[in-house]
Amino acid sequence: MTDLIKIAVDAMGGDNSPNKIIEGIILNHKLNKNIFYKIFGDQNKINNLINNKISKDYFEIIHTVDVVKSTDSPLEGAKRGKNTSMWLAVNSVKKKEADIVVSAGNTGALLVISKLNLKMIENIDKPALSALWPNKKGMSVVLDLGANIECSSKNLLDFSIMGASLYTSLYPNEKPNVGLLNIGSEEIKGNEIIKETYQILNDKTSANYNFSGYIEGNHLMDGNINVIVSDGFTGNVALKTAEGTANFITGELKKAMTGSLIGKISSLLNISNLNKFKKRLDPRLYNGAIFIGLRLTSCKKSRWY
Amino acid sequence: MTDLIKIAVDAMGGDNSPNKIIEGIILNHKLNKNIFYKIFGDQNKINNLINNKISKDYFEIIHTVDVVKSTDSPLEGAKRGKNTSMWLAVNSVKKKEADIVVSAGNTGALLVISKLNLKMIENIDKPALSALWPNKKGMSVVLDLGANIECSSKNLLDFSIMGASLYTSLYPNEKPNVGLLNIGSEEIKGNEIIKETYQILNDKTSANYNFSGYIEGNHLMDGNINVIVSDGFTGNVALKTAEGTANFITGELKKAMTGSLIGKISSLLNISNLNKFKKRLDPRLYNGAIFIGLRLTSCKKSRWY
Repeated sequence: MTDLIKIAVDAMGGDNSPNKIIEGIILNHKLNKNIFYKIFGDQNKINNLINNKISKDYFEIIHTVDVVKSTDSPLEGAKRGKNTSMWLAVNSVKKKEADIVVSAGNTGALLVISKLNLKMIENIDKPALSALWPNKKGMSVVLDLGANIECSSKNLLDFSIMGASLYTSLYPNEKPNVGLLNIGSEEIKGNEIIKETYQILNDKTSANYNFSGYIEGNHLMDGNINVIVSDGFTGNVALKTAEGTANFITGELKKAMTGSLIGKISSLLNISNLNKFKKRLDPRLYNGAIFIGLRLTSCKKSRWY
Repeated sequence: MTDLIKIAVDAMGGDNSPNKIIEGIILNHKLNKNIFYKIFGDQNKINNLINNKISKDYFEIIHTVDVVKSTDSPLEGAKRGKNTSMWLAVNSVKKKEADIVVSAGNTGALLVISKLNLKMIENIDKPALSALWPNKKGMSVVLDLGANIECSSKNLLDFSIMGASLYTSLYPNEKPNVGLLNIGSEEIKGNEIIKETYQILNDKTSANYNFSGYIEGNHLMDGNINVIVSDGFTGNVALKTAEGTANFITGELKKAMTGSLIGKISSLLNISNLNKFKKRLDPRLYNGAIFIGLRLTSCKKSRWY
């Protein structure tokens, strides 16, 4: 059992927890037998939910009743102390008892607690929340998606470097194109911080990525830009707006497809194509985001530069 | 002919001008015979494009060769002087020679030129770019969509009041719900300006609208919020991301629908439903935006309050 990947799970964070979290673990366990779950939260509730669906060889519960609430400010969340399910889960990575930590809870608190427990990669000031986003040609990396509401040009430069590294680790044979999310493609568009970042990235040559200038929201899914860089406020609004638009369209589509008898018959004929289509867009397949920029131990020379 | 609505058109602004602009006028003339077009731009080019498709009773051309470029900064655009097609078009509203001015050109320059020529509604500091956005239940008003990159809480309050007024003028029987675009629904989320605006709107009671708190990008199209308020940077990214997502999905859908013979046959059967669906989403039907907050003459007491 020592070869199992150890995932620390904050069972008490997120909507409808711990139910949804434990359901997720049970589902994941069905698909992957190489994972050991260290589950942090209310032992009784968790045991009832697991209900013997996972063998004891694959999980342990670390009991705690303290939780970070979704309404806590980041600092309030951290101040709830070292016995919250979130803190204990993050801390287990620090103590090398887990390889990864997963939480669906308060993002701001997770950021603060992670920064208090773990170290930053050298020369990186803030970790960024990053995720994969589908486009016409494949996937792109988008960051920051909400960890840092206000960002300096140095932060945006860091995000470019980290995003490119993440992309390259996923697609080793490609040199990624990095774009800055903005409201126009001309150099003069945007606020001062974005223009400053443009200058820095444009003057810098990197062996690891190409800087492609600005990218507007309507081109996010064209697939020409592999790494999309933004402050956390704008990135979060963009991500959620895309999600809302996708839900709206698929809802309207269903109405249109079943609006008449012919529609209903042809929908039946078309069901396999539509399922393929839905799979391609399903936000559940891409919805997880990772904090990039944190590391367990400090290192003399960062490999990101 | 004196009852015709007079529209001043900047024929030289926007991609592929004046061709697209004149095509638009010809199309509009086919559908509406109660409009007189005052067209500002290159007389020869415009005459060639109109090519006698509109009777001389319905248009005149005011010749100029000076144009604001899309790459101009707002101030550079204004500094091109009083003979640009954009300036002349806006100025014709000031001189009461036209009722409305339409331009597909440089938005920033249009804002500056409009502010130089026209007056602001009393107590409103900045005009906002506003548009209609489709949702599950109908349409909502969204502003600002790119005129003001950085906004104070006073600006966002103004946008709330103006957006509610625009909504009420379109749907007189409804008292609109106003929401602030943010990255979370809890009071503590967002940057300082948004939190400040929340407090102001929450403390204020208005006979003209209800303040519904924050709205996240994924709920923009639910239809519960009628007026969505944002700074111009975030609003522009949200609008364009929604447009990009809609294009991406309809593109993927076409691929999925024609991916197999069964798909092709059922697409044919389904064509009328799909056309209805496309019409419901077509950005061309909603894509125009209006500058709200400008007026021809000053007034002692604004009716917006």
